[in-house]
Amino acid sequence: MNTDDVTSQDSLQGSALGRFIAVIPAGGVGTRLWPLSRAAAPKFLHDLTGSGSTLLRSTYDRLGPLAGKHILVVTGMAHRDAVCRQIPEIDDADLVLESEPKDSGAAIGLAAAILHERDPDTIMGSFAADQVISPDGLFHEAVREAIHAAAAGKIVTIGIKPTHPSTGFGYIRAGKNLGVAGAPSAQAVVEFVEKPSEDVAQEYLDSGDYVWNAGMFVAPVSLMLKHLEANQPELFAGVQEIAKAWDTPQRDEVKARVWPTLPKIAIDYAVAEPAAAAGDVAVVPGTFRWDDVGDFASVGRLHSAKEVKDVTVIGEGARVFTEDASGVVVSDTKRVIALIGIKDVVVVDTPDALLVMHKEHSQRVKQAVDALKASGDTDVL
Amino acid sequence: MNTDDVTSQDSLQGSALGRFIAVIPAGGVGTRLWPLSRAAAPKFLHDLTGSGSTLLRSTYDRLGPLAGKHILVVTGMAHRDAVCRQIPEIDDADLVLESEPKDSGAAIGLAAAILHERDPDTIMGSFAADQVISPDGLFHEAVREAIHAAAAGKIVTIGIKPTHPSTGFGYIRAGKNLGVAGAPSAQAVVEFVEKPSEDVAQEYLDSGDYVWNAGMFVAPVSLMLKHLEANQPELFAGVQEIAKAWDTPQRDEVKARVWPTLPKIAIDYAVAEPAAAAGDVAVVPGTFRWDDVGDFASVGRLHSAKEVKDVTVIGEGARVFTEDASGVVVSDTKRVIALIGIKDVVVVDTPDALLVMHKEHSQRVKQAVDALKASGDTDVL
Repeated sequence: MNTDDVTSQDSLQGSALGRFIAVIPAGGVGTRLWPLSRAAAPKFLHDLTGSGSTLLRSTYDRLGPLAGKHILVVTGMAHRDAVCRQIPEIDDADLVLESEPKDSGAAIGLAAAILHERDPDTIMGSFAADQVISPDGLFHEAVREAIHAAAAGKIVTIGIKPTHPSTGFGYIRAGKNLGVAGAPSAQAVVEFVEKPSEDVAQEYLDSGDYVWNAGMFVAPVSLMLKHLEANQPELFAGVQEIAKAWDTPQRDEVKARVWPTLPKIAIDYAVAEPAAAAGDVAVVPGTFRWDDVGDFASVGRLHSAKEVKDVTVIGEGARVFTEDASGVVVSDTKRVIALIGIKDVVVVDTPDALLVMHKEHSQRVKQAVDALKASGDTDVL
Repeated sequence: MNTDDVTSQDSLQGSALGRFIAVIPAGGVGTRLWPLSRAAAPKFLHDLTGSGSTLLRSTYDRLGPLAGKHILVVTGMAHRDAVCRQIPEIDDADLVLESEPKDSGAAIGLAAAILHERDPDTIMGSFAADQVISPDGLFHEAVREAIHAAAAGKIVTIGIKPTHPSTGFGYIRAGKNLGVAGAPSAQAVVEFVEKPSEDVAQEYLDSGDYVWNAGMFVAPVSLMLKHLEANQPELFAGVQEIAKAWDTPQRDEVKARVWPTLPKIAIDYAVAEPAAAAGDVAVVPGTFRWDDVGDFASVGRLHSAKEVKDVTVIGEGARVFTEDASGVVVSDTKRVIALIGIKDVVVVDTPDALLVMHKEHSQRVKQAVDALKASGDTDVL
C-alpha cells in the first residue's frame, strides 16, 4: 500500500462517515416489564439502569458522536410530548409520529425514504431505543466499521458475540470475511436463524460462527429502498408517497391519509432476510456489552442501583426493608415495602398495579399481561 | 340425687348465670399482621375471616347469648369512634377508654372494679376482641361451665385442647377434677407454663394434661380484686379510685388523673399466676375451634375467602391474577396484583405499605415492624 492509497482510503472513510444519519425506532411497550412499562409509559421512557437517563435519551446520546444531531426518532403519536421532553433539541421534521403501530417495516422504511428524499447518498443506521450498551467506545468502533461496509454496498447488521447459549435471541450465521477497507471484521451473512433450542444454541456458541441478532443495522438508504421495493412494493409506494411530502406543508395531510393503509410487516422479513438471500447483507461482530433489558431479571442484572442487603432496589425515594430476602424491587411509589424470608423475588410496585414473581419466571410476565387483556383489565396495561 | 337436689341445683345454676357480665379487652395492635393491622387500625377492627364482621363485632355477638347487653369493652381512646361504629348499642358507661396503654392488669382490673362497684356478686368473663372461635355452641357450653366453677369460688380459665404441638402459645397444666356442680370438666390448675420448645410441646400434647392458654377467664369480681389487692396494691388502689367515680359525674376527671399513674403489668402476673399458686384457679377445657389469628399464615388458614387457583384472596374488590402461584393475598387497595411462579407467598397490599413474605416466616413480621420503628418510618405503623 503506497502513501496515495492510504490518503485516498482515509478520504473515502471520512466521506462514508459523513454520510451517516441515525434512526431510532422507539416502539415496543416492553410487555415483559409490566407493570412498570405499559402502553402509556413504554420501556424506552424509563431509566432501567440507574444511569439517570431514560433508555431513549441514552440511545440518543450514544449516537451523538457518530451522527451529531442527524438523528431521526420514529415513535407513536401518543409519546410525542414525552419524547420531546427527553430530546428537546429534536426538530419536528426529524420526529416521525405514527398514528397507529405498523411494525418495523413501515417505521424504518419511511425513515429510509425520508432520508433518501433529502439525500440519496445517505447511509442510515437503525438502533432501537430500548437497549443497553457499554462501553460506548466499542460500540462506536463497530458502527464505524459497519458504515464503511455499508459504503461498500452492503446492508450491515451489527451482531453481538454470544456470551452464553441464549434461547431468547435470534442468531446470525457469519460467513467469509469481506475484506472491506475500514471494516476489517465485516463478514458475509449466510443466514438469519430464529431463536434456537438450548442444544442448538450451545452448538452455535461452540462453532464460533454465530452472533446474536440485536436488530441493529447500517445501510445505504438506496439499497434499503431497492430491497423494500422488490419485496414489499405496496409498502414501498406508501412510504415513498409520505416521504415526498415530508419536508413540504403537505406532510401531515399525506401521512394521515397514507400511513393507516401501510401493510404491517417486520423489517426482517421486508428487507433483511431477502437481502441476505441475495448476498447483500454483511455482519460486523460487536464486542461491546449489550442487553435488550427484556425482563426484570435483566433489569436486576444491569442496574447500578443501591442494594439493601441482597435486594437490588430501583426507584427514587424507595423505602425498602428486607429480612432474609433477595431479588429485585422496582418502586414507582413512595410506599414502604417489606420483604421477609423470600428469595429471588421480583417486586414491581406501581400506583395501580403490583407484580410479585420469582425471578426465574421473568419471561412469563407476558402471559399475565395477556390474561389481564383477556379479562378486560386494560386500564393497567 | 333426688328431685329437690335437682331443683336447688338448677336454681343455683340459674342464679350463677344471671350474675354473668362479659368484658372485652380490645387492645393489641396485632403487630404480626402489619401492614394490615396497625396502631390506627388494629387487628380487632378487621374482618380477618371473611365473615362480614370485624373480630370485635364477632366477639360481641358471640357473647350476646351469655351476657345480653351486659358487656364492657375496654379499648384505647383513639378507637372510640371505630368501636362505637362497630357496637352502636353500647352505653357510654360500658365503654372503658384508656388514655394510654397500661397492659391487661389495669384494663381488666378496672373492669372488675367497676363491675364490683355496681354489684359485688358479679361474675365477670374476659374475652379478647381478636380471637376466632367456632362453633358458638361449644364455646357457650364451656363458658357456662366456667361460670358455675367461678360461682364455686374459682378464677376459671378456659383452656384449648391442643390439636398440634404449638410453640406459639403458653400452656396450662390441669390437675384433678374439681367435681363442681354444673361444671363437670372443671379441673384444678397446677401451673401456667410459658411457650415451650417443640420437644416439650410434643410431650405436653402426648401427656394429655395440658391445654393452650387462650387468655380467657371467668371469675367472681370479688375474687379477682382480692388477688389484685394482695399482689398489686398500688394498681388495686388506682382502679378502685376510678371505679368509685365511674358511674358519677366525676368519671372523666378521676380517670384522667389516675389512669396515667397505674403500673403496667399483665393480668397473668398480677392475678392469674399468684392465684394459681394459692390454689384458686380452675380450668375448663374448651373443645371448640380457636385461633388467635396471630399471623398471616393463620389468616390464610381461617379465611373463607374466594380462591384464585391456589391463592387465598382477601379484600373487597381485589383484582388478583395468578400464574403458577400459591399463598395468601390481602388486598386493601383496588390495585391489580399479579403473582407469577411464586409459591407459599403472603402479599399484603395497603395504600402506604406493602409486605411480601414467605408464608413460613409469618411470625417474623414483628422484626420488620421493629426495624421500621427503629428507622423512624413510624407513619406506616
